Amino acid sequence: MRIAQVAPLYESVPPKYYGGTERVVSYLTEELVRQGHEVTLFASGDSETSARLVAACQRSLRLDKHCQNQMAHHFVMLERVFQHADKFDIIHFHVDYLHFPLSRRDGITQVTTLHGRLDIPDLAPLYQEFCEMPVISISNGQRDPLPWANWQATVYHGLPRNLYRFRPEAGRYLAFLGRISPEKRVDRAIEIAKQVGMPLKIAAKVDRVDKGYFDSVIAPLLRDSLVEFVGEIGDIEKDEFLGNAYALIFPIDWPEPFGLVMIEAIACGTPVVAYRGGAVPELVEPGHTGFIVEGLEDAVEAVRRVAGLSRKRCREVFEQRFTATRMAHDYVQQFEHLIARNEEVSEAA
Amino acid sequence: MRIAQVAPLYESVPPKYYGGTERVVSYLTEELVRQGHEVTLFASGDSETSARLVAACQRSLRLDKHCQNQMAHHFVMLERVFQHADKFDIIHFHVDYLHFPLSRRDGITQVTTLHGRLDIPDLAPLYQEFCEMPVISISNGQRDPLPWANWQATVYHGLPRNLYRFRPEAGRYLAFLGRISPEKRVDRAIEIAKQVGMPLKIAAKVDRVDKGYFDSVIAPLLRDSLVEFVGEIGDIEKDEFLGNAYALIFPIDWPEPFGLVMIEAIACGTPVVAYRGGAVPELVEPGHTGFIVEGLEDAVEAVRRVAGLSRKRCREVFEQRFTATRMAHDYVQQFEHLIARNEEVSEAA
Repeated sequence: MRIAQVAPLYESVPPKYYGGTERVVSYLTEELVRQGHEVTLFASGDSETSARLVAACQRSLRLDKHCQNQMAHHFVMLERVFQHADKFDIIHFHVDYLHFPLSRRDGITQVTTLHGRLDIPDLAPLYQEFCEMPVISISNGQRDPLPWANWQATVYHGLPRNLYRFRPEAGRYLAFLGRISPEKRVDRAIEIAKQVGMPLKIAAKVDRVDKGYFDSVIAPLLRDSLVEFVGEIGDIEKDEFLGNAYALIFPIDWPEPFGLVMIEAIACGTPVVAYRGGAVPELVEPGHTGFIVEGLEDAVEAVRRVAGLSRKRCREVFEQRFTATRMAHDYVQQFEHLIARNEEVSEAA
Repeated sequence: MRIAQVAPLYESVPPKYYGGTERVVSYLTEELVRQGHEVTLFASGDSETSARLVAACQRSLRLDKHCQNQMAHHFVMLERVFQHADKFDIIHFHVDYLHFPLSRRDGITQVTTLHGRLDIPDLAPLYQEFCEMPVISISNGQRDPLPWANWQATVYHGLPRNLYRFRPEAGRYLAFLGRISPEKRVDRAIEIAKQVGMPLKIAAKVDRVDKGYFDSVIAPLLRDSLVEFVGEIGDIEKDEFLGNAYALIFPIDWPEPFGLVMIEAIACGTPVVAYRGGAVPELVEPGHTGFIVEGLEDAVEAVRRVAGLSRKRCREVFEQRFTATRMAHDYVQQFEHLIARNEEVSEAA
């Protein structure tokens, strides 16, 4: 199949640092190539891929100090995509709604994976206007604000099978990995660790916008002797960090549309204790890969019960449900549906 | 003529506070209606106009605390515009390049006035890609970074003839009006006032992004007894503020694409002492409506020479060159060209 993958230009594919969308686009692209498809990746010029790369700008925009108008680069990229549309059987967009005006008019076979939260009031009129656009969700929960959109499927994210190493022995600390921001609730993780009396390691970046929150709310809590703040970490350190933990604490307070770190943890065999919200009930299997909790007391109890879970079972669930191979198969199935449907429409016309 | 005016949604038309683009769109729209055209204004719902208003969102986005995704509203508005495209003889856009992908494909008669600075490196590839789009500049200087664009004309901004009152008597203070930001160089205005020994009144807003600059660089300079900081002012106060001044000081340090305040000053009869840059040489007529200077010494000398200028002549130049009536005539002429050309193309096809 001739597939175009169209990534955002904010980060390279894969990203040098943080960047969930571009990371997933990379996993998917590489796996599609491995499965024998002819893949073209539209992305920033500092991306690395075994697909054919069409560089829409030299450098990823978030790291480019000279970039003042990110939208302009996306508009240029979309023109390139549509100029070559007849070379692809399917175009798979990861740039939210930016291409909708073009896709509506050009009648190509296309689909969009929506990677972000959709509960922002501004978005409803937009997706209503473009309600015929085929879209794929990354969790069922993500769809709640826009149930009437033209949903094709939910395709859960997947990771390369060997990216994270299975570790059969449980570690002795709790792990928190993510951004420090109010909705990620690292303060809850600290409170849980204190109540359980287990060390907590926090690997997290602090965005400029969250600096005030970090300084005033979180920094004082880090003084506890049980808490260790290790800062932002890369892919290799992440494998160690998650794999050597007793459990991942995922104490979110917002409708997280996916939450990659949960499947990264179970890929290592590390169970997850997560607060209910967003995709959590779809990713965590209580009693198998972790527990879903409703409050602090519940969370403390769950952490204690993690000792009874099988790390091997966590890894098994990962291999069944959350590999890049499974993700790519799911997408190819959706691509096939869309191509077949468009051919029917063309023949009828 | 059936004309659509498509405004940005950041401010209402006219804006409640600051907002050059939306202000000019308002002047133009009202004048086109007055001249007997059938005008439809696409703008935020809190706009006020004698044209037919199509509200693309309830409130202007910059004042809407709940707005998190401004682009989504613009995308919805553009779909509305194109759904009704056959009801207009011409569509006049003021939203930069946002409609280019649509205009390219829909073959309507349209033109865009570019209101912003064009010397941002990100913009060149974009305007290159869309180099067939007809565009209008607001000064010749604005075109410099993109000389190969499909420029139709320069149309200078204009003001309603009676918005500012002519005052024959020269005042006794220098006036600075605008934002406090590094490129506006209010520090130069203060230095000029001190050297000349004349009071300076500063009417200016301080954006959040410029707060640090204001506190550290400008605030200490305001302690001089010659300097009075009056803060942000509205339209009515502006008439008094500019009209009662001896001269407007416009000491910019960037390629300002127009500079409305210069024509507002001469509408009152108040001459302008401006640093060379951007549109200044096109708007200020040395020895008539003010002086163009290259440095501090030059500026001080020019301020002294303002006493020899005729305030009546300033007003005359305003009435000849910078009324909304003249602006609307210029635009209608461009609209007629574009409509005629599109009819030729249609007939040839």
